[in-house]
Amino acid sequence: MPLLVVGSVAFDSVRTPYGEAVEVLGGSATYCAVAASYFTEVRVVAVVGEDFGEEPMRLLRSREIDVSGIQIAKGKTFRWSGVYSDDLNERTTLSTDLNVFESFQPALRPEDASCPNLFLGNIDPDLQAGVLRRLRPRFSACDTMNFWIEGKNDALKRLLAEVDGLLINDSEARLLAGELNTVVAARRLLSLGLGFLVIKRGEYGAALFAGGHYFAVPAYPVERPVDPTGAGDSFAGGFMGHLARSGDASGRGLREAMIYGSVLASFCVEDFSLKRLGSLSRGEIDRRARELREFLSIDGPAPGGP
Amino acid sequence: MPLLVVGSVAFDSVRTPYGEAVEVLGGSATYCAVAASYFTEVRVVAVVGEDFGEEPMRLLRSREIDVSGIQIAKGKTFRWSGVYSDDLNERTTLSTDLNVFESFQPALRPEDASCPNLFLGNIDPDLQAGVLRRLRPRFSACDTMNFWIEGKNDALKRLLAEVDGLLINDSEARLLAGELNTVVAARRLLSLGLGFLVIKRGEYGAALFAGGHYFAVPAYPVERPVDPTGAGDSFAGGFMGHLARSGDASGRGLREAMIYGSVLASFCVEDFSLKRLGSLSRGEIDRRARELREFLSIDGPAPGGP
Repeated sequence: MPLLVVGSVAFDSVRTPYGEAVEVLGGSATYCAVAASYFTEVRVVAVVGEDFGEEPMRLLRSREIDVSGIQIAKGKTFRWSGVYSDDLNERTTLSTDLNVFESFQPALRPEDASCPNLFLGNIDPDLQAGVLRRLRPRFSACDTMNFWIEGKNDALKRLLAEVDGLLINDSEARLLAGELNTVVAARRLLSLGLGFLVIKRGEYGAALFAGGHYFAVPAYPVERPVDPTGAGDSFAGGFMGHLARSGDASGRGLREAMIYGSVLASFCVEDFSLKRLGSLSRGEIDRRARELREFLSIDGPAPGGP
Repeated sequence: MPLLVVGSVAFDSVRTPYGEAVEVLGGSATYCAVAASYFTEVRVVAVVGEDFGEEPMRLLRSREIDVSGIQIAKGKTFRWSGVYSDDLNERTTLSTDLNVFESFQPALRPEDASCPNLFLGNIDPDLQAGVLRRLRPRFSACDTMNFWIEGKNDALKRLLAEVDGLLINDSEARLLAGELNTVVAARRLLSLGLGFLVIKRGEYGAALFAGGHYFAVPAYPVERPVDPTGAGDSFAGGFMGHLARSGDASGRGLREAMIYGSVLASFCVEDFSLKRLGSLSRGEIDRRARELREFLSIDGPAPGGP
């Protein structure tokens, strides 16, 4: 069942201890859509500038992503640049030029209202809520960030009462809940009306809080991470894509989706931009999912682990 | 089967956002021994000063720990003081007074040579190796820290070729391996001759690397952590205690032991010193172990989770 992804499409310039990439394709919607495209039909709603060009569109189309919802606006595409610490755990933003993204208004078609699954990437919570209310999907989740938690806290909390789930970073979850302890923060966020909460923990994996239960998935142990940019969005894409395909949002379905989120994030970090994420086979994905299940299993050693 | 624990016994003074404790019982051997005492007979080999007094000894004896290996030396007991950040993730040492611990020489009895399990807490690697060579236990593991990694690197690496396993913090594992990536660091440390490696990750749990496999256990989600002091040593105690009881150091046995390490660490952080860790029931321990197994399981939601 199709997934609609609303978010940013950007050009990123990134420096890590393993190299540098200049003005390469990035953005939350991009990573999420490409990761989800291994599981289901994906449509992207976003905005780019006149400088975007055909090549990045071709890459998205090569994953059979419906890019007809990507508006081309007068001006330049969103640009972000940043640099990572030696262990890749700290990131410093060098510049953020929102450009056409600053006045982004998601353009929806009437037929989008039949799209059963929706992922609202990190944009203004009022825009996220607007899309959600117009589409009323069967299943929805969103992401957010410090900027909106601090600047549009009320709008964000209203959104959380309407969306099924939130995928968010560790520190952002604590900030949003106003609580230093992650477990208490999770409980507080769920009490706002969320059906489930996924807390993303970078190289430590991710944790799922839903109703009365908890599940933790480790990061797939990657030996040569090159660039963590987009890992959280790729997690969201693997997670949402798997849920869209399975149609199973039960406890077990969410847990299975966590495995695929972790797998897609692990591929994302193995190269800059979408170089690795954009060229996977189902076999590669399923192999890592199997290994991750074994890493979680008390019963047996995983053959051929790290 | 009995476990012999060599390490420090200390008085700690700790300040956290949740309160303060002054000159309370601490030390790596103390936490490890008390955690292990729920699974097996434990003997502690350590040193304290003339100021140690009867009360802390009574606490250890109340856990049926054999304290006859704790020497009382002329001088004062090891003292440490520190303060934790608001989220408990950062610790600043305010003072370290080694006192009698500075010239600690583990005193072994002839009958210790029949003790099948040995945990070498964080002391000089030459002392650790001396104990290991004299006892030749069936199963052994050690801990270490930055101070020895930097100051006695060669001695430490010789020790790792002789001991079965190493339990160590994330950042220390990377420092010891001279490698920024944890997975590569783990591989390198295993290549020194270790049978297994446990990387402790605080609130993110712990990871096991052994031969060709990998296992990650989350931290038990504690809602009201009070003081993280001793959590890593309590993990080691739960882990080693369970292994000593089961006698099963296979992949599955190590994985089971990881669960119990995580459980004992979770109790440790719920109060200062040994207030919570020292007064557990088997029922409480088994309940958390069952919940942790459910948190790891893809199959089902854990009833009554957080």
